[in-house]
Amino acid sequence: MTKPLRLGIAGLGTVGAGVVKIVQTHADLLASRTGRRVTISAVSARSKSRDRGVDLSAYAWEDDPVALAKRDDVDVFVELMGGEDGPAKAATEAAIAAGKDVVTANKAMLAIHGQALAETAEAKGACLRFEAAVAGGIPAIKALTESLAGNEITRVMGVMNGTCNYILTRMQDAGLDYQTVFAEAEALGYLEADPTLDVGGIDAGHKLALLASIAYGTQVNFAAMSIEGIERITIEDIEQAADMGYRIKLLGVAQMTGRGLETRMSPCLVPATSPLGQLENATNMIVLEGDSVGQIVLRGAGAGEGPTASAVLSDVLDLARGTRVSTFGRPAGDLVAARAAVSTAPAPFYIRFALVDKPGALAKIATVLGDAGISIDRMRQYGHEDTTAPVLIVTHKTTRSTLDEALSAMDSTGVLAGAPVAIRIEEV
Amino acid sequence: MTKPLRLGIAGLGTVGAGVVKIVQTHADLLASRTGRRVTISAVSARSKSRDRGVDLSAYAWEDDPVALAKRDDVDVFVELMGGEDGPAKAATEAAIAAGKDVVTANKAMLAIHGQALAETAEAKGACLRFEAAVAGGIPAIKALTESLAGNEITRVMGVMNGTCNYILTRMQDAGLDYQTVFAEAEALGYLEADPTLDVGGIDAGHKLALLASIAYGTQVNFAAMSIEGIERITIEDIEQAADMGYRIKLLGVAQMTGRGLETRMSPCLVPATSPLGQLENATNMIVLEGDSVGQIVLRGAGAGEGPTASAVLSDVLDLARGTRVSTFGRPAGDLVAARAAVSTAPAPFYIRFALVDKPGALAKIATVLGDAGISIDRMRQYGHEDTTAPVLIVTHKTTRSTLDEALSAMDSTGVLAGAPVAIRIEEV
Repeated sequence: MTKPLRLGIAGLGTVGAGVVKIVQTHADLLASRTGRRVTISAVSARSKSRDRGVDLSAYAWEDDPVALAKRDDVDVFVELMGGEDGPAKAATEAAIAAGKDVVTANKAMLAIHGQALAETAEAKGACLRFEAAVAGGIPAIKALTESLAGNEITRVMGVMNGTCNYILTRMQDAGLDYQTVFAEAEALGYLEADPTLDVGGIDAGHKLALLASIAYGTQVNFAAMSIEGIERITIEDIEQAADMGYRIKLLGVAQMTGRGLETRMSPCLVPATSPLGQLENATNMIVLEGDSVGQIVLRGAGAGEGPTASAVLSDVLDLARGTRVSTFGRPAGDLVAARAAVSTAPAPFYIRFALVDKPGALAKIATVLGDAGISIDRMRQYGHEDTTAPVLIVTHKTTRSTLDEALSAMDSTGVLAGAPVAIRIEEV
Repeated sequence: MTKPLRLGIAGLGTVGAGVVKIVQTHADLLASRTGRRVTISAVSARSKSRDRGVDLSAYAWEDDPVALAKRDDVDVFVELMGGEDGPAKAATEAAIAAGKDVVTANKAMLAIHGQALAETAEAKGACLRFEAAVAGGIPAIKALTESLAGNEITRVMGVMNGTCNYILTRMQDAGLDYQTVFAEAEALGYLEADPTLDVGGIDAGHKLALLASIAYGTQVNFAAMSIEGIERITIEDIEQAADMGYRIKLLGVAQMTGRGLETRMSPCLVPATSPLGQLENATNMIVLEGDSVGQIVLRGAGAGEGPTASAVLSDVLDLARGTRVSTFGRPAGDLVAARAAVSTAPAPFYIRFALVDKPGALAKIATVLGDAGISIDRMRQYGHEDTTAPVLIVTHKTTRSTLDEALSAMDSTGVLAGAPVAIRIEEV
């Protein structure tokens, strides 16, 4: 048997401890599958004394992850600290500089610095892999990079933040409003320290940026993404969507259009009977579409110790088998800086607004939409609540930019109480 | 750039022509993703003159696939002829003997001869890969072999024959009986020349045998599988199942039990709200369960030109990138001959039978079940049709062997008109 593949693991939170457990409990299984033993040489974390439920006594301890990354007895640096800069980035760069392969679960670091890191890794002949950074245990990166490599990718979609999906399905199931369920989720510890990362769509946006880069051969460009969170979704939106046969999901979509690469993370209406519509609680789903393969749907746990550790092991065991794939699926130098297109793909939209109680108010809104060339598929006006009446409109297909102009014009009519809410209806 | 990876393709049916199309239309894309051009040196098929909608003039033609497999200008032999023996096997063996890598979509050949072929391939240092043999474009083989390699696999399930799923969902949607929908499917060209391969569960069984080998490190053993087709499923079964919140699917299940490896392909009741229950028409679904990753669900087209060609390319492009994975996920010599366990995993069952119109008839059946230690969860008796009354029973958990003894004893009571039908209820 070949000599062992020796890991250095930085970050011993839930996922790090999970990786240690798998390496310890499945040592023979991993060796029989890869022809090579996988061992741990050294570990690093903020607190040496904390009990993590795993025996670390056989491994060297490094207080400094950069020192860990450079150790001679480490073949693969496993970065599980998180954070887009700071120690995670410093240690990853140190490992690459030392010619070591890197496996990371760090979506934020890669979404911001992925291109530079991939270029450096290739210059040093090192592999930089990140299956665990996107959708936990779901093999999204491998499926897109390897299984669908014979396809021109036509669209990538996904529900990639379990907390947001939990909040939206809990609102629907229990008929609760956003604030109540948000507070529940916070109490349950489901939210990041900065909840905007979750409910603001940023965490999911990081993941989509990585998928888009692989799908279209483009340099990862998180800054160009259009991002909208779930904070403005009301229980009324959810119930109205359900009445019309839809569910509301925080959906990421990446597609190459004639005018550039469109990447957006936003609440969308999807058919209730579709796999995306049926996705409940914290489960994740990735939908990959290619010109030959059609639509492939991948579903599973998007977070948690076991699923994320399983994804880390997927990359580690690839390296043990000698599999070496470019970070974003092709040489970093070949990735192009794609023109970012804003919402050029037309879609129907759901619009909600409150109309003030004035004669001709609805006519003004209908005129604005008509003038913008937006035709109405369905409309409902409800009875007045105090001095305003809720109105829902489903439009025929239009572009987001046309719609935004119309929304702005609607605002200027003086017949709306508050800004209108618009949610895209995605064909899935 | 490295020198091209040169293919020899034997079999130019739908899938073969699809592979040629991808290689021709996406030549630059494939090269940019793998760092290596993929070319076709030679092709072989039964008829040289048939128009397949692709230009083959640039490729050498071989009448004999064995001669094609041995050509010096072929690096990878792509076997798309089908058939468990005959030319497919002869040519695959010839390619391996010549030290060439082989990519095949041939589930029957691998289910019967997979162990021997894998051993020969490894002895010659050749790769033998078969993503396209299982569930078309769904990356089932790669996900199980590579993505979940860090897991002890706890269960593998799948709906892997699109024709059967089409028949079952069409029966349900249109309220038609089996014979009518079978005739429809035949007229539409959905069935194999020998329809037993489809509706008898054999084709799906071949696929399950391959998945089980990877999952549990066992020698592929199609002969040990318990196989039951969909021929005895009636529209009444489907409607009764639906009334109780279930769907009937031809479901493959492989799980390692304390008494050995259980692999079975049979109609099962699954919850209507589960991903498997919601699977409609010819779509396939693979469910992989591991001790760390939990449950991963993969859904997509299980057949057809594009999806299957995409899977062939997945293997070809892996080879172009230099990825080399053992046929069944570990060295062929390490695969063990697992003891085949028959139905040791207990489950609830749905039983349907017709009771003759005699006093005390139902009591006799209830006594047989009670004597066998099988308790009844739910029972329905319907009004008499002529001289018999249909009865449905849902049992609590029992093993298939206990149930089979009870069914045999029920048959001996003399109060049944015809043999009872029993369908397992699978927890999914």
